[in-house]
Amino acid sequence: MKSFHPAKRLLMGPGPSDVHPRILEAMARPTLGHLDPDFQGLMEEIKTGLKQAFQTKHKMTYPVSAPGSAGMETCFVNLVEEGDKVVIVKHGVFGERMRQNVLRAGGEPVMVEFDWGTAPDLNLVEQVLNQNTDAKILAFVHAETSTGVRADAAALCKLAKDHDCLTIVDAVTSLAGIPVLVDDWGVDAIYSGSQKCLSCTPGLSPVSFSEAALEKIRNRKSMVRSWFLDLTLVMDYWEGEGGRSYHHTAPVNALYGLHESLVMLFEEGLNATFERHRMAHDMLVAGLSDLGLEMFVAAEDRLPQLNAVAIPEGVDEAAVRSRMLNDHGIEIGAGLGPLAGKIWRIGLMGNSARPEAVERCLNGLEASLKAGHNS
Amino acid sequence: MKSFHPAKRLLMGPGPSDVHPRILEAMARPTLGHLDPDFQGLMEEIKTGLKQAFQTKHKMTYPVSAPGSAGMETCFVNLVEEGDKVVIVKHGVFGERMRQNVLRAGGEPVMVEFDWGTAPDLNLVEQVLNQNTDAKILAFVHAETSTGVRADAAALCKLAKDHDCLTIVDAVTSLAGIPVLVDDWGVDAIYSGSQKCLSCTPGLSPVSFSEAALEKIRNRKSMVRSWFLDLTLVMDYWEGEGGRSYHHTAPVNALYGLHESLVMLFEEGLNATFERHRMAHDMLVAGLSDLGLEMFVAAEDRLPQLNAVAIPEGVDEAAVRSRMLNDHGIEIGAGLGPLAGKIWRIGLMGNSARPEAVERCLNGLEASLKAGHNS
Repeated sequence: MKSFHPAKRLLMGPGPSDVHPRILEAMARPTLGHLDPDFQGLMEEIKTGLKQAFQTKHKMTYPVSAPGSAGMETCFVNLVEEGDKVVIVKHGVFGERMRQNVLRAGGEPVMVEFDWGTAPDLNLVEQVLNQNTDAKILAFVHAETSTGVRADAAALCKLAKDHDCLTIVDAVTSLAGIPVLVDDWGVDAIYSGSQKCLSCTPGLSPVSFSEAALEKIRNRKSMVRSWFLDLTLVMDYWEGEGGRSYHHTAPVNALYGLHESLVMLFEEGLNATFERHRMAHDMLVAGLSDLGLEMFVAAEDRLPQLNAVAIPEGVDEAAVRSRMLNDHGIEIGAGLGPLAGKIWRIGLMGNSARPEAVERCLNGLEASLKAGHNS
Repeated sequence: MKSFHPAKRLLMGPGPSDVHPRILEAMARPTLGHLDPDFQGLMEEIKTGLKQAFQTKHKMTYPVSAPGSAGMETCFVNLVEEGDKVVIVKHGVFGERMRQNVLRAGGEPVMVEFDWGTAPDLNLVEQVLNQNTDAKILAFVHAETSTGVRADAAALCKLAKDHDCLTIVDAVTSLAGIPVLVDDWGVDAIYSGSQKCLSCTPGLSPVSFSEAALEKIRNRKSMVRSWFLDLTLVMDYWEGEGGRSYHHTAPVNALYGLHESLVMLFEEGLNATFERHRMAHDMLVAGLSDLGLEMFVAAEDRLPQLNAVAIPEGVDEAAVRSRMLNDHGIEIGAGLGPLAGKIWRIGLMGNSARPEAVERCLNGLEASLKAGHNS
């Protein structure tokens, strides 16, 4: 067993995105204790930064000490009680994962399903909400990483409010790539990931909870089914008015990385960051078109940061991805579930959303497709 | 919000322990995708290294993508079903946390409690097992981080076997500091943390499961109450015969760090590492005695890596810790629960278990105690 020295890849798959050297450098700074006063100062700054990123005043905004899936679970395991009906909008892999979360929390999922690659139809969601007047929560994925589709988060949140439902929103791929307006939309619980448009290493999941969400949690009749993710306990560590108390050992160095990614986000500015993602997307779409490749998702539903590209007939898609990785050092993603073999997923997230990266990716793709024709 | 540059502390509290620069450097290497073939090679090496560290052949040995508390929850949430009786040996903070885990998994905890600072009395444990012939699991903490006490893991595992119980063992503070003999003892489920004697950054929890444990999980009648920690799903990612499948995004750079810490562990050798911890402990105890300080735990029950020091009467213990941190750059730990104000906890774990570190700590303590007398 010897020290591991990975090759430098250009990460343009569905995440992790390419990590900026400044963030990697921050991760290597000396470890502080998780109760050190200096570290607690850092925690406060991270909370403030995440509030700005989520565009919220929600006090209970912090990073869960585990990847996005644990952020999702934090939302469901705390908000869903035995017997709670949860309407889930499913338009990809992560809607199904939400269903699993509801079941394991003892709730009753009601699914509203849409074809993968299409945006959720608001009328159908409204219909299901009308049919389920006892539903407590509406859950949906804002930016579906498995398809590259953006759901209309503002409208879905409004529908939920009109039907007295709390909302749980998956913003794993959206945060810092397109606007996520937690307060304007009236989101009650939201989770994201560090390894997407924040351009940080994977392992942390920023979350935010509204006062209404906290109220439901306070009034629970049964225990939260997870100790590690129990919000009322975690709060003592991340809020800790009158002194923080130990809950678990925070991943100190990973939090250095997240902090640095927030510093970089505000140096550039939120709107400038969104604009950079949009421009990289336009450049990619134009370049793909020049190569004769088509986008899988209709223009109005596309996420700039996650691009589903239709695989042309007769192309060995795995061979192309393999050549991209081995000959060009570029990672792009495969399709999942029903889209396996039908799409590639090209991520333009964080540090990957740069013209140089798009150009390298297009050149690599052109060469890899040609190599396939010639072989 | 500006980049964060922490001061270098000498971490001699209950964890995180002092992190070796080689491990920090490894964390800053370029991020690979979590399905990259090169990264999968690293995963295999980590599994092999953890098996050696745990001294086990258990195939299902891997690091949970979250801190030690999540490793604990992985063991309980997978192994405990609704109504399962679990006998818990409690001799500190972490026995109580085990109780919380059992309750949240729907099980029935039966507590065997001991005074904090004393080792569990095997006769009493046996008595409780005799009284609870329907118990399915015996759970205990091998190295109680809150007291510095070592439990007789071999004997407790034998008692469990004799009473047809599976075992869940907390080895958070023991792994790589004192022998942890998973196969020899017949442990069924065990969890540790990256940030103790492995001397890595916090955020990962190595676990290992026996075939008997996996058999119980396979025969569950109800769903595991966590999706993120569900072993049968995680297995598809960490085992993945015939190709790994995506479960969650692994904390890639944190795993670089864990890999490097395992490389360093085997460079030194397991037995040499244990010996280094023991020698540092002997040096610390002798030095504390010279300062007129006494150990809180009886010599035969002490952990070399976690030293509970009795606070002399009249000493403002928080002021001493604060001077240690601010004047000397050294972190030591406070007591928890009933031991708050009664003990300091000095960790000699991983990179902190060195003569230079012990000497700095003793000098700092001497000066900090004197400063208290003079003020």
